[in-house]
Amino acid sequence: MIDPVVLKGFRDSLPREEKAKKKIERKLEDVFTLYGFQPIDTPVLEYENVLLGKGGGETDKQIFHFVDNGGRKVAMRFDLTVPFARFLALHYPELPMPFKRYHIAKAFRGENPQKGRYREFIQCDFDIVGVDSAESDVEILSLMNASFESLGISDVVFHVAHRGLFNDFLEKSGCKEKSVEILRLVDKLRKIGKEKVSEGLLEIVGDENTVENIISYITASYPSMDETIDKIVSLIGEETESSQRMRRISSLLENLGIKEKFVFDPSITRGLDYYTGIVYETFLSSLEGIGSVCSGGRYNNLASLYTKENLPGVGASIGLDRLMAALEELGSPLVREIPTSRVVIYFRKGEGEKALECANALRKNGTSTDVYLLEGKKMKALFDYAGKNGMEKLVTFQDDGTIEVKDLQSRESVKVNSLEEVLSICQ
Amino acid sequence: MIDPVVLKGFRDSLPREEKAKKKIERKLEDVFTLYGFQPIDTPVLEYENVLLGKGGGETDKQIFHFVDNGGRKVAMRFDLTVPFARFLALHYPELPMPFKRYHIAKAFRGENPQKGRYREFIQCDFDIVGVDSAESDVEILSLMNASFESLGISDVVFHVAHRGLFNDFLEKSGCKEKSVEILRLVDKLRKIGKEKVSEGLLEIVGDENTVENIISYITASYPSMDETIDKIVSLIGEETESSQRMRRISSLLENLGIKEKFVFDPSITRGLDYYTGIVYETFLSSLEGIGSVCSGGRYNNLASLYTKENLPGVGASIGLDRLMAALEELGSPLVREIPTSRVVIYFRKGEGEKALECANALRKNGTSTDVYLLEGKKMKALFDYAGKNGMEKLVTFQDDGTIEVKDLQSRESVKVNSLEEVLSICQ
Repeated sequence: MIDPVVLKGFRDSLPREEKAKKKIERKLEDVFTLYGFQPIDTPVLEYENVLLGKGGGETDKQIFHFVDNGGRKVAMRFDLTVPFARFLALHYPELPMPFKRYHIAKAFRGENPQKGRYREFIQCDFDIVGVDSAESDVEILSLMNASFESLGISDVVFHVAHRGLFNDFLEKSGCKEKSVEILRLVDKLRKIGKEKVSEGLLEIVGDENTVENIISYITASYPSMDETIDKIVSLIGEETESSQRMRRISSLLENLGIKEKFVFDPSITRGLDYYTGIVYETFLSSLEGIGSVCSGGRYNNLASLYTKENLPGVGASIGLDRLMAALEELGSPLVREIPTSRVVIYFRKGEGEKALECANALRKNGTSTDVYLLEGKKMKALFDYAGKNGMEKLVTFQDDGTIEVKDLQSRESVKVNSLEEVLSICQ
Repeated sequence: MIDPVVLKGFRDSLPREEKAKKKIERKLEDVFTLYGFQPIDTPVLEYENVLLGKGGGETDKQIFHFVDNGGRKVAMRFDLTVPFARFLALHYPELPMPFKRYHIAKAFRGENPQKGRYREFIQCDFDIVGVDSAESDVEILSLMNASFESLGISDVVFHVAHRGLFNDFLEKSGCKEKSVEILRLVDKLRKIGKEKVSEGLLEIVGDENTVENIISYITASYPSMDETIDKIVSLIGEETESSQRMRRISSLLENLGIKEKFVFDPSITRGLDYYTGIVYETFLSSLEGIGSVCSGGRYNNLASLYTKENLPGVGASIGLDRLMAALEELGSPLVREIPTSRVVIYFRKGEGEKALECANALRKNGTSTDVYLLEGKKMKALFDYAGKNGMEKLVTFQDDGTIEVKDLQSRESVKVNSLEEVLSICQ
């Protein structure tokens, strides 16, 4: 006998989770469609060098990669961004520009599984490619807001910063050469705290004045986005292209009436990613510990590894596994058991015809209906089954030719004479 | 620069196909839900021995398999049936029984790509496990019929046979020991024709009389299912449990008023698969060449490799790629370009606020709306964009403060003074 186990870091999805996942995905897809975003898909398996963006050398340990039966070096996608860049380069001439896409799919990483982190996980990415403007930045921010609204998550705060603005500041502060190390460190602020970051900064930049200055920058978050911009501009000493972009974004958000959901938080850097403009992370006020549930930013030349076409873009990514864990903790109705069938039909020997006929009439009427297929089983087994599946009504056939419809909550029942009556009760 | 190519046998899914695929999947999911079936998912990657059902030995060349960074022998799933068997064995105590599940997901095979066959493909499986009865057989057949109805495919014929009945017949004919070879050969009837099958049968059974008998059996298909059963029973010489099951299925289908969609076609064997009861394939009358678009049958002990629990079941599988190719050939509206946005908003410098505000008002109203984000671009580029995306209406802001709504088909336009009027025109 073979042990029916799954691999470490991988999971089955049972009906309760899978129904919730499908419901969440549909809601997100509906919002994306409302915003004019179109779905795409790419293969799970690609050439290793396409996904890793280089010729040979050491392969990232976190990537599932192998040599296929045809001798090709292949790898399983580890995110949806790299395949999208490759997709853009390949299909550029056929795509409407600017191109707005979303992609909800599995990605794979060999990292050590932790709470909320799996080796197989679902990403939901959405991007606008082919334009660099405040309006497109705000379309993404507005879509992020609409996405969480559609899921009924109201206590969400979007933390926005601007990578270009941080670069402006670092240049003015004379630390441009060390920006990589500084970014990497600042990105950890939320995890390790201000003190540890200050210590680390001192090691990097060597003088306390500059450290103080950088700390002023990354902690300059006022309730009003414009106040924060003013403070940052004063730290830089002048308006820059990036500060003006931020002012414009702030004005557009205000005009849309959604500004109160957004905080300018200069500590957001998105680590060493490829971002060049706005960057953002999304936190749930009541569940800060869970980390960002939606992150992203603006990048230039997304597909530069594969094409000479200049393709600036802005996008965001929702980690569906983490989001579902958050919804679970928040007690959201979205992840509660959703009954599949409202009605269950029980039948005894010789009543098969009646049972299937009744079921199909209910289904034609739009009522999700299950037939308890173990004919004539003890009622206890049936009630267990109906309970496990969260059903509302039980239909049985009586010896006197009537049909009984029992409400499984109130335990009250009515007897009727025709299928039509059953349909109207179960509507 | 890296060549942005995909692997042989793999494909990107562009918005047109992906929208069609999502639409088809939603329709199928809605039907499955109506019938009380619940979704599950399993990992793409599993232990190789779990998927292949054996310890070591030679690995099937068609399977994508490798050793992961932790030294485990792993493989990508090549169908959804084996993972389902493993899933059942692992989660049996938590599942309501009978368990009705569906699973729409990708599977992977290294076979040589042909027209309509890919190395990455989408399966849609649905099964009822935990019961062996005519009613459960018919629930699956009825669901198959409802699935195709929901997709608007009316010229579909379900070819049903019974593996147990064929075994009864082979036993009576004295060919029981050779049933594996005979099944394998008969399965090819549609491809190689009656003559080749006869020749092959003669080699296997050695006498012409028996060959003639087998040919009578596999070609005994009358318009009426019951007539075919009668003929088969006369060939066997007596009623058997299997013939009675077929009679009961026929009667239940008749009672549901869907019998005319089903043909008893004794040549259907489903090759060497694990089936023990009814088996079926589904053909489109106007596209027979495309092969079966939905196949399956009844099996016993699906999970016997992993558990001692006896789990009989009945199920079917739709190959979504083949189905989509069929819909394409049939010119189905399902695979035609579905416009994502009905409305596109054009704006010039300084009109960004108005454009985004108008877009979001339309979206709040349920109208899918796109903003053409390249502000002030030439109108030609805009019309190209609207055309590529199949949009219906164009909104522009006029110098006199009015808003123009242009119908992109009729080229007629109206000028209005308020956002409310735009909403009502674009509803």
